[in-house]
Amino acid sequence: MSDSQLPGAVVTPAVVVDTDVLDTNLSAMADTAARRGLVVRPHVKTHKSMEIARRQLALGAAGITVATVGEAEAFAAAGVGDIFIAYPVWADRDRAGRLRDLAGRIRLSVGVDSVAAVRELAAALRGGAPVATLVPVHVLVEVDCGLRRSGVAPDDAGPVAAAAAAEGLRVGGVFTFPGHSYTPGGLESAAADEAAALAAAAASLAGAGLPCPVRSGGSTPSAAWSAGPADGGPVTEVRPGVYCFNDAQQVVLGSYPVDRVALTVLATVVSTPTPDRFILDAGAKVLGQDRPAWAPGHGLLPGFPGAAITGLWEHHAVVVPGPDGTRPQVGDVVTVIPNHVCTVVNLVDYLNVSRDGKLVDRWPVDARGRNT
Amino acid sequence: MSDSQLPGAVVTPAVVVDTDVLDTNLSAMADTAARRGLVVRPHVKTHKSMEIARRQLALGAAGITVATVGEAEAFAAAGVGDIFIAYPVWADRDRAGRLRDLAGRIRLSVGVDSVAAVRELAAALRGGAPVATLVPVHVLVEVDCGLRRSGVAPDDAGPVAAAAAAEGLRVGGVFTFPGHSYTPGGLESAAADEAAALAAAAASLAGAGLPCPVRSGGSTPSAAWSAGPADGGPVTEVRPGVYCFNDAQQVVLGSYPVDRVALTVLATVVSTPTPDRFILDAGAKVLGQDRPAWAPGHGLLPGFPGAAITGLWEHHAVVVPGPDGTRPQVGDVVTVIPNHVCTVVNLVDYLNVSRDGKLVDRWPVDARGRNT
Repeated sequence: MSDSQLPGAVVTPAVVVDTDVLDTNLSAMADTAARRGLVVRPHVKTHKSMEIARRQLALGAAGITVATVGEAEAFAAAGVGDIFIAYPVWADRDRAGRLRDLAGRIRLSVGVDSVAAVRELAAALRGGAPVATLVPVHVLVEVDCGLRRSGVAPDDAGPVAAAAAAEGLRVGGVFTFPGHSYTPGGLESAAADEAAALAAAAASLAGAGLPCPVRSGGSTPSAAWSAGPADGGPVTEVRPGVYCFNDAQQVVLGSYPVDRVALTVLATVVSTPTPDRFILDAGAKVLGQDRPAWAPGHGLLPGFPGAAITGLWEHHAVVVPGPDGTRPQVGDVVTVIPNHVCTVVNLVDYLNVSRDGKLVDRWPVDARGRNT
Repeated sequence: MSDSQLPGAVVTPAVVVDTDVLDTNLSAMADTAARRGLVVRPHVKTHKSMEIARRQLALGAAGITVATVGEAEAFAAAGVGDIFIAYPVWADRDRAGRLRDLAGRIRLSVGVDSVAAVRELAAALRGGAPVATLVPVHVLVEVDCGLRRSGVAPDDAGPVAAAAAAEGLRVGGVFTFPGHSYTPGGLESAAADEAAALAAAAASLAGAGLPCPVRSGGSTPSAAWSAGPADGGPVTEVRPGVYCFNDAQQVVLGSYPVDRVALTVLATVVSTPTPDRFILDAGAKVLGQDRPAWAPGHGLLPGFPGAAITGLWEHHAVVVPGPDGTRPQVGDVVTVIPNHVCTVVNLVDYLNVSRDGKLVDRWPVDARGRNT
């Protein structure tokens, strides 16, 4: 007895991607963005997979977004020619030479949120050469639109951009991450905050006499509300990541339904010690540990409505059955929708790829663990 | 300005192990256990490193403990000859043949907590052969001592062990994990629960006419209280894992002081957007995400007393300074003690090894990601 159609070839815990759902998700985001005049620059920290990046680029993505220099290197090595490191990069130690090398090979954009980081980046790109011949890099200033993570206040973007221009860097524009969209009911208002912050930041650059061609925002929950050119809004580009797979967070937030979840974890029931709980072999080392306060547990079990993963250890998930008490038998394989798919992918070396319930391929997680 | 003595060769975020503290921790546990007449069988899911397993075995460990067949394979391949998979193993699919192969090469012990799992294991070890010649495996029955995870009630261990004997498996004994020791003030009482459960389980096996030579318990917080032969207690063996490195959880629980933390994460301050916060490049993808309700944040910053990591994203830690407002500058490197070291090690491919503040080696995380 099992709620999975996949054959016995997959040993659990296993991360499985349904390619049909994946392709539906990629096309839908491309279509939505095109209708609103927005460029899509997918954040590939979610999938870390060249196979999926290729599909995104084939559907019109302008390039990709990454979080680290290491991720940029992995995708550049596989042939991606336009990469934005959407992070306040500190270009020290071996990162300096690696950035210089990348900038010489691809169209590279780099995030900054301080004058100090601008100067460190410029020094890195000069590489100690006595004559200041900079390898071209597009600098985008990060602004905070309400998440209170990194990023300067929008009105303070101009001086950072001016410092970049003074160092001979190319000012590409501004970016923000409306991550406070990860709140029930907060999707649309986070998109409004994003638009306001990007408009203010662009005005701050204008005040410093600088253009601001790229005004980049977007998260998976808020992307459907990003105010692009077709709506008369200031946003030019969105950087959603999770949308390729979706996850329990997106389902609970209401941004995507369960049938748009492309990545699941297959787990075996290894113990049913009492009627009030059963234990899966999918623990924190495959499901990840994101659990916002508004999540009903450490993931969803679509085959067992109302069941909740109430406890998570490294190799154990403790599940409390739903109100009807239905629970599987020891040895059954069940499907889990993880809370946050980005951390799941980073825990495995490959994705099992399915179509119509059959295993058809394995894709490597090319940039797994590229944290530096 | 930096609170780390390590040279610029380490690019952040970096996981660093201090070998002197590591060796102190390993020796102290070996000594404590020896005084109490307890065998140490370290859980190597913490370090996943042959280099450290070798040191533990050299200090008298009877063998090692792992959580998965894949971990057992990695350590068996590196020469460890006595391995206990302390998990309710379900011996299906390719795990069946892999277990049979392992059992033919090393002294293998396997956990079970149901008659169904016993039968699946026996079938796996017969490998479909018409004559029931089992590859020898020692079976240990898991009992629950209060954590309410896997494991049968201690009084129910006898029937599971009897089923194993009936299938021709060797009954090695019983084991439990007193994981409810991970509660402030709960260390000593969890050890008492462990002793009571192991004694009851051994009695249950005796009732079924079976010996119970191994009565295995132990977690890092409770190991100092495990009731072994020297105390007239029932415990014969402990399986601590975290003690080799320790972590913020152990410090907060009071089981080890900060100077016994052997593994830390070096992080660069990448943003100081406002006076009330600074941002590190060590996020969930290197610090892990364990945060029990009693933890003061997502890790400790020993160089900044009172500072708290209040927010954690994949590549960002948001730190609120302590009461005196001291905060580092952008570009500074700071030391973070992660909450739970096991999940940190599983996120990286190698450990940077230091002695006297200098980088002296790199050790591979040999069994990283071996979840199946």
